[in-house]
Amino acid sequence: MATSLKPISLPPSTNRFNQYLPIHRCQSLIRCCTSLKTLKITSEPQPVFDSLRSFAPATVANLGPGFDFLGCAVDGVGDYVTLSIDPNVQPGEIQISSINGIGNCSSKLSKDPLWNCAGIAAISVMKMLGIKSVGLSLSLEKGLPLGSGLGSSAASAAAAAIAVNELFGGKLEISDLVLAGLDSEAKVSGYHADNIAPAIMGGFVLIQNYSPLNLVRLPFPGDKDLFFVLVNPEFEAPTKKMRAVLPTEITMKEHIWNSSQAGALVAGILQGDLEALGLALSSDKIVEPNRAPLIPGMVGVKKAAMDAGAFGCTISGAGPTAVAITDSEERGKQIGQKMVEAFMTQGNLKASAVVSSLDRVGARVVTSTPR
Amino acid sequence: MATSLKPISLPPSTNRFNQYLPIHRCQSLIRCCTSLKTLKITSEPQPVFDSLRSFAPATVANLGPGFDFLGCAVDGVGDYVTLSIDPNVQPGEIQISSINGIGNCSSKLSKDPLWNCAGIAAISVMKMLGIKSVGLSLSLEKGLPLGSGLGSSAASAAAAAIAVNELFGGKLEISDLVLAGLDSEAKVSGYHADNIAPAIMGGFVLIQNYSPLNLVRLPFPGDKDLFFVLVNPEFEAPTKKMRAVLPTEITMKEHIWNSSQAGALVAGILQGDLEALGLALSSDKIVEPNRAPLIPGMVGVKKAAMDAGAFGCTISGAGPTAVAITDSEERGKQIGQKMVEAFMTQGNLKASAVVSSLDRVGARVVTSTPR
Repeated sequence: MATSLKPISLPPSTNRFNQYLPIHRCQSLIRCCTSLKTLKITSEPQPVFDSLRSFAPATVANLGPGFDFLGCAVDGVGDYVTLSIDPNVQPGEIQISSINGIGNCSSKLSKDPLWNCAGIAAISVMKMLGIKSVGLSLSLEKGLPLGSGLGSSAASAAAAAIAVNELFGGKLEISDLVLAGLDSEAKVSGYHADNIAPAIMGGFVLIQNYSPLNLVRLPFPGDKDLFFVLVNPEFEAPTKKMRAVLPTEITMKEHIWNSSQAGALVAGILQGDLEALGLALSSDKIVEPNRAPLIPGMVGVKKAAMDAGAFGCTISGAGPTAVAITDSEERGKQIGQKMVEAFMTQGNLKASAVVSSLDRVGARVVTSTPR
Repeated sequence: MATSLKPISLPPSTNRFNQYLPIHRCQSLIRCCTSLKTLKITSEPQPVFDSLRSFAPATVANLGPGFDFLGCAVDGVGDYVTLSIDPNVQPGEIQISSINGIGNCSSKLSKDPLWNCAGIAAISVMKMLGIKSVGLSLSLEKGLPLGSGLGSSAASAAAAAIAVNELFGGKLEISDLVLAGLDSEAKVSGYHADNIAPAIMGGFVLIQNYSPLNLVRLPFPGDKDLFFVLVNPEFEAPTKKMRAVLPTEITMKEHIWNSSQAGALVAGILQGDLEALGLALSSDKIVEPNRAPLIPGMVGVKKAAMDAGAFGCTISGAGPTAVAITDSEERGKQIGQKMVEAFMTQGNLKASAVVSSLDRVGARVVTSTPR
């Protein structure tokens, strides 16, 4: 059973967009704006830090009609990775020294890096960089419950990928880090980038293609407020069932409807039009209607959110977390309260709510110790 | 058989966006930006003009993955309506006095207003306005060939709808005019607004919902150049076959692909990113692959356009016109030439090309005679 979400203890927001400013802004995050082409690493890079601590945010995938190709990062909750050069580890290898954090993650997650989200992503980045001379030790702190629909595995993978890259001077492009994260996601939840891409890049990201990888940033206007009400019930969403319940074939009519909503969703994001965004978010006729009945109370929770003034509400990822959007933090808290109540009255489930704003930064280094 | 497209003889563009400035900018076009709610007409409006002449542009619907919900208006080609108060016509009624223009339209189109695109739209607007005291006479000049895939019927309907509304002082909202046009389209080509909405509103328009009608303007940035290469072969696209060849059911995988392309298409439009727009435009895996083989040479025409440097190419509407996009008029002419050649070599079809820019205005009054 998932444990309640708890906002993380990052320093308070220092700008109007309610972002946590990274202590080290990753060069690769800037490069990503202009290019997503893989750099050729010609020689093994040397570490520039003895150790560093990275963070990657929670993500909301699908967003209704954006099923399997759209996601966004939300601030205030996420996972940490502490990565150190460790002379006791075989050069070119990585060990997971500890797993701590929310709920029972330490007992549920493997410390074998080949079977751990963070480990797999870290190994992929080490391979891309050609690290052979240095051994690494990784410590994972989970701020996100497993199987919550908030991109828990992607947050671990993103934090690990950025940590390894930055430890060695940030040589890789964002697209490489997303590919490393995809190696991890493929083993855990399927080859989908709608969590890992926004976890690394921040903001809203549309995945247009995998071959070649084509990621489209969808910048939400900086002068508009957007808050996500994330309500996580104490309920384990049966992941296999959540996939199995999806239709393999859909009608042309349904396709046209959902595609038009996807287009409207993108327009709502880019234009910062919360009413339009919320309307589209709530209008999925293919995925949500099949999944919502598997989450006790979800239909009533959505209604409660809308009645309380949310612009839109749907299932976050594959659930069970419900996500609603609004333009004020205060209103967000009120909506969250109503959604928590509805999970109890309609689904007999305890739930907890947090109100987050858009994380526009994505995975980042938060502290570091230079060599 | 369709006759070659000929650019119309409107006055040359007077601004950098290559638009034809309307002599009378319709008030309702401005209001539409803020509201699409139907106004209640409480009393029969009086005519403010004795006669007027209106124009509505050609439109490109579908735009690849925007099948059935996205379209845009293109300048330089379209239909004209001349509308006059006629004491010889029964008050509250309308007659079609003449049909002229391109190809064999005068013999193919009915002069019975109940069976003519312009007539049906005009009657709908008259009903909305409650016109009972005045009889009207309408003359239609077709600049668009029938069945070309360039929104020929929508252009006639749009020009007629705006003419009637403006003759009586422009009381209706844009959404009302689109609904009037939909009455016409429903009889001719199906209840789809992806031609009539941009024909009336100009620019790119996404149809998010029909009940209630929800039209989303997608403004293309004013400082970016966008040219459409429209290549119309002398070939009658078998409209019924073009519909019949579409699958009624599609796989989830295809749906996700096309939806993500639709999202990317909208992002490309709003961000004025022609590379992204073209990539998405060309990426439809549901409609174009089924329709292209019915238009001789189309597959080769698309390849010729891309080889000649187009950002993207697809079928306009249900065809047979092919549409490619580029950022320079000169390049557009070169691309058009290559596409015309490909229609001949690959499909044994004569074809004509025009290069148009985006029509940002939509249906408009071009001349008028005050009462």
